[in-house]
Parts: sequence; structure tokens; C-alpha cells
Amino acid sequence: MLTLYDNNDSGNGYKVRLLLAWLGTDYHYVDLDIFGGASRTPEFLARNPIGRIPTLELDDGTHLAESGAILYYLAEDSPYWPQSRRDRADVLKWMFFEQYSHEPYIAVLRSWSRHGEITQQKRDQWGEREAKGYEALGIMEGRLEGHDFLVGDRPTIADIALFAYTHVADQGGYDLARFPAVQAWIDRIKGLRGHVSIDAVLKG
Amino acid sequence: MLTLYDNNDSGNGYKVRLLLAWLGTDYHYVDLDIFGGASRTPEFLARNPIGRIPTLELDDGTHLAESGAILYYLAEDSPYWPQSRRDRADVLKWMFFEQYSHEPYIAVLRSWSRHGEITQQKRDQWGEREAKGYEALGIMEGRLEGHDFLVGDRPTIADIALFAYTHVADQGGYDLARFPAVQAWIDRIKGLRGHVSIDAVLKG
Repeated sequence: MLTLYDNNDSGNGYKVRLLLAWLGTDYHYVDLDIFGGASRTPEFLARNPIGRIPTLELDDGTHLAESGAILYYLAEDSPYWPQSRRDRADVLKWMFFEQYSHEPYIAVLRSWSRHGEITQQKRDQWGEREAKGYEALGIMEGRLEGHDFLVGDRPTIADIALFAYTHVADQGGYDLARFPAVQAWIDRIKGLRGHVSIDAVLKG
Repeated sequence: MLTLYDNNDSGNGYKVRLLLAWLGTDYHYVDLDIFGGASRTPEFLARNPIGRIPTLELDDGTHLAESGAILYYLAEDSPYWPQSRRDRADVLKWMFFEQYSHEPYIAVLRSWSRHGEITQQKRDQWGEREAKGYEALGIMEGRLEGHDFLVGDRPTIADIALFAYTHVADQGGYDLARFPAVQAWIDRIKGLRGHVSIDAVLKG
């Protein structure tokens, strides 16, 4: 059986949890205290030298890191990875966009709001990060104004990758009311069969 | 014929140029003055709402953004995208690692060193970014100590994605002499058939 090393508050981990729920796949769950250093121990670094969760342990005992790579691996034979090369490239476009132009602003302000002290350095960066996060939400709004999903007309792992931190952006201070198409898409994703919430408590 | 919208100093653009050279594919080249705002004009935003280069215009007139997605699209039927799902996931792992844990430190310090003024805000962030860049190089070194390439035993688009900014990391102040396996891998990539340098001047 698959084992997911994760932290229950992580949106990157939630991406994998949500896909596994969509797929109806059972797995072991290991909730690591990442704020206490549990992803930086020698034991965990042997699993993933990058020292980050989520990390997926496969049936053969090897490990796969990076939420986007895990989503691809689990979805490749499913409807959540499209048939055409062109659509697949667009799925990856949104997933790279999320990691580079969305997560560092929307996820990071959520994390700063929920964990640790707001230092002067964080305060100095807040405005710029917030502006870039709003820019990312505006780019999503542009796509979703005319479409139900980010790629094609069906949900894909691109939707999962963007949903994870977007639907809790308010926890980092973002006002999602400015983005009605994004809000409608959030409700659409929540209505899909197999949905689980980001704070669902999982047992090992 | 494909058209690549790019800036000749961009490592993200160079990833696409290097793969096109490996593949022996001809293309039109459009060098945009991104520091003068050429990727933020209404005309360019119609091509790519994210407002970034590289952006690839396909034969059907549609556009594809995000260097990683472009690499996937161009490589899918080539030896640079592996046969097995497991190896493909590892290729994507390294590509997401590059965009999230490498590029913001190694590429950004190179860009700050080459373009614009070194502001106090940049100075305040320099040490932390440099340390995280060295951490990323250490993770690459760990893989490359025992292997010729990042995934499997052949070059893939993962090598292209990491090579682009790693081989010019010294331009951002990094000392690559600390990473002998990375240095040997850089020489190995440079020796592959079809290699072009990051500063090769391309004509439209």
C-alpha cells in the first residue's frame, strides 16, 4: 500500500490527499511535525533528500517527492491526466505556474499567518507578496470566466494543484470576493465526487 | 514553424533553446526586451496572460507558457522524456524542484547581479537566498555523485531544466568548485551532440 508522508496543514500535501480521494485509493498516512523539524531528520532525508513533504512511498519501497510529480504519477492512467499532448502540456503549465507564481505568495502568506512569529523581514515582504498573489488570482479569473475547469472541460490535476491553496487564500488575508469566477470554480471542485476537505483528520 | 518568444539572457528561455537544438528543430526566434516591459504589453499578454517568457507559439497559432510545460510538450515523443511512468515522475520531480527550490535562489541572484540596482531590500535577502541556493546545489551533488544524469542513465529534460541556471551560477556569486559531481555533469551536458551555449545569438 502507498504511504504518504505529510503534514495535515500543508496545502501541497492536501493536493495528494485530494487526488487519492478522487481516485478512491487507500493509503497509509504519516503526519509529520514539520515545524518541529521532522522533515529534516536523517531518517526522513534518506526518504527525500529535498527534506519536504509531501513524500510518497511506493509499493517497491522507493520514494517520490514534489507534489506535482506525485500528482502526475498517481493520475497518469486516470481521467485527471488528459488524453492529448496539448492538454497535458496545459495541465503542466498551470502546475508550474502554481509553484512559481502562486504558491510563494498565496501559500506563504497563509503559512506566515498561521505559524510562527511575524518578523520585521516578513512584514517588509508582505505587500509585494500580496500584490503578486492577487496577480495570480487575476490570471486564474481570466481563464475561469469562460471555462468550468483550468484545462479542457473536465477536472484535471491542474485544478487540484491550484485549488489546494486558492480555496484557503482568505487564511492569508486575500479577499476572494474580488474573483467571482474563481469562487464559482471553488464551489464546483467542492461538489465533485470524492471530495475531502483540507482539514479532514486522517488516521495512519 | 514554431515561434519562440524569449529574452536571450533568460535561463528559462535557454532551456527551450537547448532542447530545440538537441532535437534539431528549426524555429523562429523573437527576442523581447523584457526589462523594457515587452512581456507586459497588451499584445504579449494576449499570447500569454502570465506575462512571462519563454512562450512558444505552435503551428495552430495557440501559445504555450511555462518553460517546464514547453519542455514536456516538445520532448514527449523523444528520448528526452523517459519510457517509464516512474522515471517520468522523477523527471517532473527535478523540474518542480528547480522551479521552487533552485531558480528563486540561483537564477534570481544571477539576475540581480546582472540587471538593475542592488537595493537595500535585495541586500537584506541576499544571504538567505544564497544559503538556499547552496542547499539546492548540495541536493544535486548528492544525486550526481553516483550517476551521470539526474534520472536514469540518459539525458532528459530534467537535465536541461537544471543545467540552464546551474552552469552559470557563478554569475550570481556561487562557487561551483564545492560541487565536483555537479561540475562533471555540467561538462557532460556541454559535450552532448547539438549543444548550444546560453549566449548564442539567434536570428529571427
